[in-house]
Amino acid sequence: MIANLSDLRRLVADLPQGDEEAASRIDAREARLTKPQGSLGRLEGLVRWLGCWQGRGLPRLERVDVLVFAGNHGVVARGVSAYPPSVTAQMVANFEGGGAAINQICKAAGLNLRVAALSLDAPTRDFTSEPAMNEAEFVEAVNIGMEAVAPEADLVCVGEMGIGNTTAASALAAALFAGDGATWAGRGTGVDEAGLARKRTVIDAGLARHADQLADPLYAAMALGGRELAAILGVALAARLKRTPLLLDGFVSTAAAAPLHRLADGGLDHAQVAHCSAEAGHAILCEALDLRPVLDLDMRLGEGTGAALAVSVLRAALACHAGMATFAEAGVDEQV
Amino acid sequence: MIANLSDLRRLVADLPQGDEEAASRIDAREARLTKPQGSLGRLEGLVRWLGCWQGRGLPRLERVDVLVFAGNHGVVARGVSAYPPSVTAQMVANFEGGGAAINQICKAAGLNLRVAALSLDAPTRDFTSEPAMNEAEFVEAVNIGMEAVAPEADLVCVGEMGIGNTTAASALAAALFAGDGATWAGRGTGVDEAGLARKRTVIDAGLARHADQLADPLYAAMALGGRELAAILGVALAARLKRTPLLLDGFVSTAAAAPLHRLADGGLDHAQVAHCSAEAGHAILCEALDLRPVLDLDMRLGEGTGAALAVSVLRAALACHAGMATFAEAGVDEQV
Repeated sequence: MIANLSDLRRLVADLPQGDEEAASRIDAREARLTKPQGSLGRLEGLVRWLGCWQGRGLPRLERVDVLVFAGNHGVVARGVSAYPPSVTAQMVANFEGGGAAINQICKAAGLNLRVAALSLDAPTRDFTSEPAMNEAEFVEAVNIGMEAVAPEADLVCVGEMGIGNTTAASALAAALFAGDGATWAGRGTGVDEAGLARKRTVIDAGLARHADQLADPLYAAMALGGRELAAILGVALAARLKRTPLLLDGFVSTAAAAPLHRLADGGLDHAQVAHCSAEAGHAILCEALDLRPVLDLDMRLGEGTGAALAVSVLRAALACHAGMATFAEAGVDEQV
Repeated sequence: MIANLSDLRRLVADLPQGDEEAASRIDAREARLTKPQGSLGRLEGLVRWLGCWQGRGLPRLERVDVLVFAGNHGVVARGVSAYPPSVTAQMVANFEGGGAAINQICKAAGLNLRVAALSLDAPTRDFTSEPAMNEAEFVEAVNIGMEAVAPEADLVCVGEMGIGNTTAASALAAALFAGDGATWAGRGTGVDEAGLARKRTVIDAGLARHADQLADPLYAAMALGGRELAAILGVALAARLKRTPLLLDGFVSTAAAAPLHRLADGGLDHAQVAHCSAEAGHAILCEALDLRPVLDLDMRLGEGTGAALAVSVLRAALACHAGMATFAEAGVDEQV
């Protein structure tokens, strides 16, 4: 629990680091497994990353939590989305009823899905005229995210739902990494050309309105973001404090966690981006964060779907690392 | 069973097509699911492809066979591999003992792994001086592949093991799609710079030696390929004849199946490439075949590991398609 932005800043100023000794143990075993060095590619690095942040020479992925946050956005009144804002609550009901894409992926993979709807009846304010949230609202949402990270989780995946939230995420990305509406806006759930033009204009107006305070990443998240984005920032922070590896989903989730990268060197070292979204800004954002997505399947749904999907890659990587025979065990000749 | 190359040509001349009616039923359901149109990206197309080739409006992935073929290559005597040829048989023993990467991935995903070692004591001949196989040897290996495709399989994955076989695959790719050793050779299991130079020279020598007959894709497969590549060609053909969807693994598997593409328009329409290998030629080959790999994780191990890994993506895609609520069922508003 944090009481205010100052608390948050204090936590960010002293982030724990990964366990390099655990990572070294993983490297040592990896080198002895019956395959050419490096031939499992990213699977090898992902196991190392899991072990480094779990502090385990043999990582595990038994309990995987998928935390999905939903919020509504005042900026929707500016015509930036292809769907009406009523859909946010309807989709939360769909999550609860088991009918959404994320339900199917979690069920198939045995992942622990939890959905939190954040004051859907009180959308954030239109950021072109005032900050989307005040400090109390922002801190409340960050706390909800922080408290959602269970100590028992071996891996946390984050996702989101919120009509209008690619506009908020684009504005936040622009504030954190420069650029404007033309750089960062994409079609979201599928706006037409006119909607995309409005989206760009709205982002530029938000950036102009709050320009004098956007050098502060937390102010940017408060003024331009949304409750579900703030909760994801809280998850990212709490996961780091607990040294739990974190899988970010698509554009909105990555933008939501990005303030941590701007506030602290290596602030997202405990995170991977699971899937490169078809949403225009995501590739740029991943590049800025120096995070290469695990998957690239043209998805742009959010909900945590990309993150949940990537868990199967992590589990396969771990199964290889843990279960393969060494050259000596299998009596296989090594490289000449 | 085929008796000779003429039998093979007759089968290839009359390949069955996919079931567009099943695919249309999938399209119709997909459009009603609670997500923006197209937002599951490639997952949607993969479900359509499964249904089209299974002939099912609701595809299934219960029984998935992973067929791995191993062969030895005379061309290894030319110093083209980082490992001694003894490793092929040792790795087959490792597969049988459950110690290889492919064992772990299959076990974790519940896939049915079958490994066939093809005359490991009788390597193919050095293709720089004579054809790697004669017609009887080639046809025998094709038949082994064809017979490995069980009618009960919902999906077939192919993989391979064979010290020296990226050299054979590179030569075959060059014969099928132009280019030379410099275009197609990569480092395989990890040859050094001198080994890579030898590999290029050997490929060019093979192409020159058989130049007058390489316009025939089957002759190219016989003269430059290998038993495990021929078996994979047999799998690809039998899968098409049974209308079973096929997941190709990396560079060697894709090159092995590629003659089918050159022999018949759309001859690999029933196939997807599971993973873009880090082996240099694979991206070029996928481009030539107009097949975009599902995954891209810098792997270059073979064994069917990329294919087996991609099954989890297909299963998640199918789970979404089969299990999601429609807009009407969930009471979610559609696009404005």
